[in-house]
Amino acid sequence: MKFSIKQNILLENLNHVIKGISSKNLIPILNCIKFELTTDGLYLSSTDNDISIQAFIEKEEIDEIETLGEIVVSGRYIYEIIKKLPNELINIEEIIDNKLDIRTTSSNFTLNCNIVSEFPNIDIRNSDNTIILDKIVFKNIIRQTSFASSQQESRPTLTGINFKINKNKLEVGATDSFRVSKKIIELEQEIKNDINIIIPTRNLNEFSKLIIDDEGKVELHIFDNKIMFKFDNLIMISRLINGEFPDLSKLIPEKFNMSMKLDIHQFYSSLDRASLFTSESDKNIISLESKKNLAIITSNIPEIGHVEEKIEIEKSNQEDINISFSSKYMMDALRAIDSDQIELQFNGELKPIIIRSSEDENLIQLIVPIRTS
Amino acid sequence: MKFSIKQNILLENLNHVIKGISSKNLIPILNCIKFELTTDGLYLSSTDNDISIQAFIEKEEIDEIETLGEIVVSGRYIYEIIKKLPNELINIEEIIDNKLDIRTTSSNFTLNCNIVSEFPNIDIRNSDNTIILDKIVFKNIIRQTSFASSQQESRPTLTGINFKINKNKLEVGATDSFRVSKKIIELEQEIKNDINIIIPTRNLNEFSKLIIDDEGKVELHIFDNKIMFKFDNLIMISRLINGEFPDLSKLIPEKFNMSMKLDIHQFYSSLDRASLFTSESDKNIISLESKKNLAIITSNIPEIGHVEEKIEIEKSNQEDINISFSSKYMMDALRAIDSDQIELQFNGELKPIIIRSSEDENLIQLIVPIRTS
Repeated sequence: MKFSIKQNILLENLNHVIKGISSKNLIPILNCIKFELTTDGLYLSSTDNDISIQAFIEKEEIDEIETLGEIVVSGRYIYEIIKKLPNELINIEEIIDNKLDIRTTSSNFTLNCNIVSEFPNIDIRNSDNTIILDKIVFKNIIRQTSFASSQQESRPTLTGINFKINKNKLEVGATDSFRVSKKIIELEQEIKNDINIIIPTRNLNEFSKLIIDDEGKVELHIFDNKIMFKFDNLIMISRLINGEFPDLSKLIPEKFNMSMKLDIHQFYSSLDRASLFTSESDKNIISLESKKNLAIITSNIPEIGHVEEKIEIEKSNQEDINISFSSKYMMDALRAIDSDQIELQFNGELKPIIIRSSEDENLIQLIVPIRTS
Repeated sequence: MKFSIKQNILLENLNHVIKGISSKNLIPILNCIKFELTTDGLYLSSTDNDISIQAFIEKEEIDEIETLGEIVVSGRYIYEIIKKLPNELINIEEIIDNKLDIRTTSSNFTLNCNIVSEFPNIDIRNSDNTIILDKIVFKNIIRQTSFASSQQESRPTLTGINFKINKNKLEVGATDSFRVSKKIIELEQEIKNDINIIIPTRNLNEFSKLIIDDEGKVELHIFDNKIMFKFDNLIMISRLINGEFPDLSKLIPEKFNMSMKLDIHQFYSSLDRASLFTSESDKNIISLESKKNLAIITSNIPEIGHVEEKIEIEKSNQEDINISFSSKYMMDALRAIDSDQIELQFNGELKPIIIRSSEDENLIQLIVPIRTS
């Protein structure tokens, strides 16, 4: 393998592939990046068996291809080397004793390589079950649901995001059993087979971060035990989580006793201030009480002090509510909403609170209240 | 105590005083801020017995003063509350049961106060030994020396910066016994008594960070066991470190066998790349060898790889050098230099390397080489 390439082009692609490497991985080969120089161009791949990422640099973007070939080299080192080199032409060559020579006018690095055949095979092919989404729609889906996933490995299905497709309706949902975030998308095409899969939230967040330019489409290729995402010259494969995801539609009530509309920015600031007198260990509990056209938010830590916040609201009827919930969960929910106004729906102080955006009826969130007495 | 003040004015001053509070302090009163409302204005103070900070808000900046008085309240809470309030008028009032009431149109906080008499007395008065420096000069002194201080509490004197004044010559020096950074400043005024003090580096760094606007002067008031810094409406007091600081002038040789001039940016980038193949546990060791008009910088980790960097140099004579040192220490030293070119001076591979800026003869740095064979 021998070729020359501009530093910025190689770095941009290594920047993507390096995300597939976990710094905690104890198996050396899984900390590596594979370079495959073919007549088409250069493939860069990484895998930690949980996610795999492949970037492709077309031959037109490579200054000179002298010898084809493949090598496997420490991901962290090759990435740091290329990052620290100036933006000029870099000559990369496999030399004897399974070493990689990286050379510019003033620098000369030699890196020991790993054995190519030990690098896991990444199976890349298209699926019959393919969904195509706008990049921006895909990123919004992840942003608006992922935070509601569980961090607790003890319930693996809840550490993923559920993608459910029936014909042209895609329902994306996440829950940690104390809250739910659900987004409905109408697909441009109908899918033949119903789909109901769970994708690890961590991998979706990683992949979402790779989408920098919001123009264009993302392809999702769904298989039995994995999903492949494709956009531009980038491919990411994630395993799926086995198990059954809770049926979220059963959790979300269709009727409610009372609802209130409020300004999202005022509500968020009030929660933020009220959360000063809450603690993680105490579930960040705050109280919300409605009195005519006011919502009164209170919290207190007896040894420190207390706070009372007032916001104007518009209620659907004369009913009043006095309910307690996690300020953190409510603030997470509000950050997922892009409108200026929201509607909170209640069915009494022990029943879930529904949070809806006034501009996006396809985003529905739920928070379980906290019983205080 | 009862007054009204704009949020941004109070926050700006709390921003300073909060720096005097250590989050690790287990004594509650040392986590507090004292508010003293007098006919002149509002004094805010904090102290952790190591540093004390006082900010003063003139009465003209306070919208309304109704009742004078003093209270002591949790620093972290009052700071976070004021930070999270919108930029509008805040009404602050001491209410019964030793509580503080903080009120805006929509928020109402009540904070429990601490006992005023338990707050340490901060002794603020001017000294006969006063130095006046431009803020920008003071900040540069700290930036150019502090990194060379020791982090090891086992040798307390080396965790401070030495200020030595003889007539109108101020010598500022720091060392961790492996490197030295020394800056000489000519004062505008002569000081009657010789001064030789050690100021904790950590406190100087904190104080330096408080100087945001570079226009104007800083006053240094020196006492037997403490130093007071004054600028604008801000006062900071630091304890001094007892003990004798090493005589740095004895460490810095006046003659040298060979010197080389080199471009600081090229040298820094080469060191940065070479440092990829070094490790903290191995003292970040790299080698520098001169060959005619080239300096060759090398480093290696046998199981990973090696690197060779070349830079053009201008040598003072035919002598050559082959020396090893910490790339981290050399990079720290280079960051303190503002010129484009530096001169390295050598007296053999086991003798200290002197680093000089080509534009500032008053900054002298030294690094002890590492013996490799």
